[in-house]
Amino acid sequence: MHAIGVDIGGTKIAAGVVDDEGTIVAQTRRDTAPDDAASIDRAIADVYAELSASYQISAIGLAAAGFVAADRSGVLFAPNIAWRDYPLRDNVAALIEDKVTIVVENDANAAGWAEFRFGAAQDVDDMLTLTVGTGLGGAIVSNGELVRGAWGVASEIGHMRVVPGGHYCGCGHEGCWEQYTSGRALVRDAQAAAHTQKDRAGRILELAGGSVDAITGPHVTQAAGEGDPLAVELLSELGRWLGEGAASATALLDPALIVVGGGVAAAGDLLLAPARKAFSDQLSGRGHRPEATFVVAAMGNDAGMVGAADLARL
Amino acid sequence: MHAIGVDIGGTKIAAGVVDDEGTIVAQTRRDTAPDDAASIDRAIADVYAELSASYQISAIGLAAAGFVAADRSGVLFAPNIAWRDYPLRDNVAALIEDKVTIVVENDANAAGWAEFRFGAAQDVDDMLTLTVGTGLGGAIVSNGELVRGAWGVASEIGHMRVVPGGHYCGCGHEGCWEQYTSGRALVRDAQAAAHTQKDRAGRILELAGGSVDAITGPHVTQAAGEGDPLAVELLSELGRWLGEGAASATALLDPALIVVGGGVAAAGDLLLAPARKAFSDQLSGRGHRPEATFVVAAMGNDAGMVGAADLARL
Amino acid sequence: MHAIGVDIGGTKIAAGVVDDEGTIVAQTRRDTAPDDAASIDRAIADVYAELSASYQISAIGLAAAGFVAADRSGVLFAPNIAWRDYPLRDNVAALIEDKVTIVVENDANAAGWAEFRFGAAQDVDDMLTLTVGTGLGGAIVSNGELVRGAWGVASEIGHMRVVPGGHYCGCGHEGCWEQYTSGRALVRDAQAAAHTQKDRAGRILELAGGSVDAITGPHVTQAAGEGDPLAVELLSELGRWLGEGAASATALLDPALIVVGGGVAAAGDLLLAPARKAFSDQLSGRGHRPEATFVVAAMGNDAGMVGAADLARL
Amino acid sequence: MHAIGVDIGGTKIAAGVVDDEGTIVAQTRRDTAPDDAASIDRAIADVYAELSASYQISAIGLAAAGFVAADRSGVLFAPNIAWRDYPLRDNVAALIEDKVTIVVENDANAAGWAEFRFGAAQDVDDMLTLTVGTGLGGAIVSNGELVRGAWGVASEIGHMRVVPGGHYCGCGHEGCWEQYTSGRALVRDAQAAAHTQKDRAGRILELAGGSVDAITGPHVTQAAGEGDPLAVELLSELGRWLGEGAASATALLDPALIVVGGGVAAAGDLLLAPARKAFSDQLSGRGHRPEATFVVAAMGNDAGMVGAADLARL
Repeated sequence: MHAIGVDIGGTKIAAGVVDDEGTIVAQTRRDTAPDDAASIDRAIADVYAELSASYQISAIGLAAAGFVAADRSGVLFAPNIAWRDYPLRDNVAALIEDKVTIVVENDANAAGWAEFRFGAAQDVDDMLTLTVGTGLGGAIVSNGELVRGAWGVASEIGHMRVVPGGHYCGCGHEGCWEQYTSGRALVRDAQAAAHTQKDRAGRILELAGGSVDAITGPHVTQAAGEGDPLAVELLSELGRWLGEGAASATALLDPALIVVGGGVAAAGDLLLAPARKAFSDQLSGRGHRPEATFVVAAMGNDAGMVGAADLARL
Repeated sequence: MHAIGVDIGGTKIAAGVVDDEGTIVAQTRRDTAPDDAASIDRAIADVYAELSASYQISAIGLAAAGFVAADRSGVLFAPNIAWRDYPLRDNVAALIEDKVTIVVENDANAAGWAEFRFGAAQDVDDMLTLTVGTGLGGAIVSNGELVRGAWGVASEIGHMRVVPGGHYCGCGHEGCWEQYTSGRALVRDAQAAAHTQKDRAGRILELAGGSVDAITGPHVTQAAGEGDPLAVELLSELGRWLGEGAASATALLDPALIVVGGGVAAAGDLLLAPARKAFSDQLSGRGHRPEATFVVAAMGNDAGMVGAADLARL
Repeated sequence: MHAIGVDIGGTKIAAGVVDDEGTIVAQTRRDTAPDDAASIDRAIADVYAELSASYQISAIGLAAAGFVAADRSGVLFAPNIAWRDYPLRDNVAALIEDKVTIVVENDANAAGWAEFRFGAAQDVDDMLTLTVGTGLGGAIVSNGELVRGAWGVASEIGHMRVVPGGHYCGCGHEGCWEQYTSGRALVRDAQAAAHTQKDRAGRILELAGGSVDAITGPHVTQAAGEGDPLAVELLSELGRWLGEGAASATALLDPALIVVGGGVAAAGDLLLAPARKAFSDQLSGRGHRPEATFVVAAMGNDAGMVGAADLARL
Repeated sequence: MHAIGVDIGGTKIAAGVVDDEGTIVAQTRRDTAPDDAASIDRAIADVYAELSASYQISAIGLAAAGFVAADRSGVLFAPNIAWRDYPLRDNVAALIEDKVTIVVENDANAAGWAEFRFGAAQDVDDMLTLTVGTGLGGAIVSNGELVRGAWGVASEIGHMRVVPGGHYCGCGHEGCWEQYTSGRALVRDAQAAAHTQKDRAGRILELAGGSVDAITGPHVTQAAGEGDPLAVELLSELGRWLGEGAASATALLDPALIVVGGGVAAAGDLLLAPARKAFSDQLSGRGHRPEATFVVAAMGNDAGMVGAADLARL
């Protein structure tokens, strides 16, 4: 049974036909304008038209960054697209002649679901994904079910507070986890270190063409891979926060597996080794309970598309 | 259909026959010795014998304080009873002639389940209970299911870290939530204030017979009820931590309802009003999402017994 | 005996002839360019020429924002003027024909000294000034002597860390006191509250012309003066951090008096009342020691000029 | 010119005749009862009688653990001896026939002064001593003068708050520096690690005879000296807090030298190397200012006696 998964980004949508095994059998994409919500509706209808010409489609899953309505019919609020209480499902349905199930899912939930069904977490019933990209997203599966919450906005895991009075967050609060474990945090910490520890920042600065403001996460990861002590320390600190926050989440959720994805996960054990140590150091009840395993996500950039398709089909 | 729920404490067990509506139709209890695990097995078999004489019993639910095995057959570790990887289910079954389902449940989970099925949270599918007793326990229900975790040790919510480098906890870590939101925290804060703010501690000290070491939680609650400013401030601070921690848990779980139980909940709005304000102040995405409601638990001390019976029956 | 005090700002210098009682008997000013250090040298020589025409001058004190050399001869580093290891004293001396003592002082130290000699702290020997302006500056007087430190950079009090892993600071570190107690902190907190507590931010937003980004400290202070609950809360929180940080500084310094100056001090008791309460709540050894008094600074904007002149004369 | 220094402990006093070079030329001691303040008065008079038989004594300095009066005449409050607003100077003077100057000094101040005059800090004018014993004490010298504060209770440096909501302190507050940097903190952290990281605590436990409760600071230091990873980590963490707190104190005081004494300083570079790194990492204005040097105290257990004698002579 084929379903279409659509990953809706700020400036483009990527759509794919996904089979029962999570394989993408066909793909396409369209450019869109984030300020023009109707253009996104039309683009979705358009990719459906294209893909359904060759495949029989039972359902469409739309992966959207934002607060998704509990009934999966639309988006309450999106940070990067002009959606406010937007009835995405019905708008798209009105543009499609076929009778096909359409559901809207949070993109991090969709990506996590793909890992659970077809990726790194296929063998467990209880898992947590942590997507360390620009920010920190996540998805929770408990006893084989996606945890969506009462209003569809569960798993906003990056906004668990880890430091009272801590770093300001774009959400208006202080000390959110994603201010300590994310690509943005890595860049900010690296730039600060380039000021306060100038003598140790040579290699990172060199990679950034000599400009503190030009430092990016990949510069730090590359330098760390070469063994640069400051870069190793920066990723290690990020990993420490990753592990410590995961220990708090585990006190609530007791997952068997913690799947780490997102761009920063490319640092591999430079990030995960300190994360595992910190997790183990901070795990409540350690020694009296089994411990979750940390693994790197397996589904790559298509996870959102595959997960959305699969969730639509359920 | 009747089931027996057994609430296993350190020095006694309380057992009841619970019907489908959560009503306790008969009760009994036995004294036990926490250091003698076999005596507890026998006491359970004994109350079964007594209660099953008058009622047809389909299942027995055993509510135990500790880490319960994922297959609900026993206890991995208990802080107050001599259980280490203890096969409680099979030991009890060996002492009972009838063929009856026996399951072991964590006591906080059992109590939370009772609130969900028959108490304060009957009308929602997603809820969180926070039991503010000596420590801080909890239970999570997601989409109508109890969240037990991969190894049965989910909902150890009091050990979510809220302050890095914070108060030492009996679990060996620092900054656990229950060190800021519990009866023990209230007593410790009151005793500290009696030293550092002696001029304001008159009424609390009077209730404690003049001795700082004799101050208890109920003294603070009584003084606060009379309007004593220091006592009001102490409960308000406890409520603030309750609300702020709940906001972090909500970022993960998005419950519709937060049910506050335990002895400290007797303080009512002296605790809950500041908790609600702090929750609202710290809730991520506030204004773009519905907000969970805080209510006081409805099931009282029998919650563990009722919940264990009901979970055994499922 | 007359001395000249010069307050060197980013774009202008203000100079005054100060008598033994701290009275300014004549004043003048010049515009300057922060990127052209030599223009500042010349402007200082120029105001000396003007003022020394009518008064006999024994010494010149130069108040500069930045790290001042321990021998008071120049500036090691300034954040807003193009000074790096700059020999300000000798450069100015080379432009003046008269033999006159010239000393360079940190501007916050100079302003604090003026309070100590002629202002709010005339009657004590041990005091601390806290200047809550855009940032948080300070000056320490111990046993009647200005505490300059081994290298002239003592009293960088705003960079005492109050929250590990706290707000990023412009200095490259996290959790500096001035990120919690300063005009900048007030604005940032008010803007954050306008997002997360929109329903309570009406009056502040109205004063800011409806724009979150246009909110300033004076808007908050005005709203608080009118009784606006959110504004009162914001200033109270700032005051709490002011008092708590002062309690830490007092553990080291044991001042008799804490003089609060800077633009935010205009909020008066809206700031100072919560500061006093927090100070008292957090003061180590409270009940076994006298407590420092909080007062508002008395010398106004001329404090730097007066203090620099007086320190030059010593 | 000879002076007597008396180090007053809980159960004994140690007295010495100290010459102008800080050399102890004669010593004696007496047992005392902490609950019997008069017995301490008599013991002091007694050692004076003994020592003054052979030496001409110009002054007596009494080093006392507690809050000392600003006029150095007595003790406001002592944690371990029955002194409350106790006129120690006059009581002792009444028991001595000779006319001799008697002054009371805080013991940590006296010890720090000895380092400044005759020990590790002879070559600087601005220094900070940090005595890492059971608790964390300190002394401040600014521009060659001991910083006593307005009421004689400056340098209570262990009660600077380093973590809001942090570890409870015996003083009734939370997060005091001495709860993170002291022998007591080391023991507590080691005991906690023996619970949560049992697999790594083998060597420390072995030294403690197998009992978690028997772990002491010297056990950790010995294990660390042998290279035990957990012990090294524990001392490194203590050193990190030492360095980070020192960076905050340096923002206020700008010392040239930081002298680390007390029993834990026996760990040497196992403590000081991480302290230096953390200090440097956290130092405000680093790169634009000279940095203080960390050294180990040189005067040993006689520092209090020597410093008190010298301060009495001034």
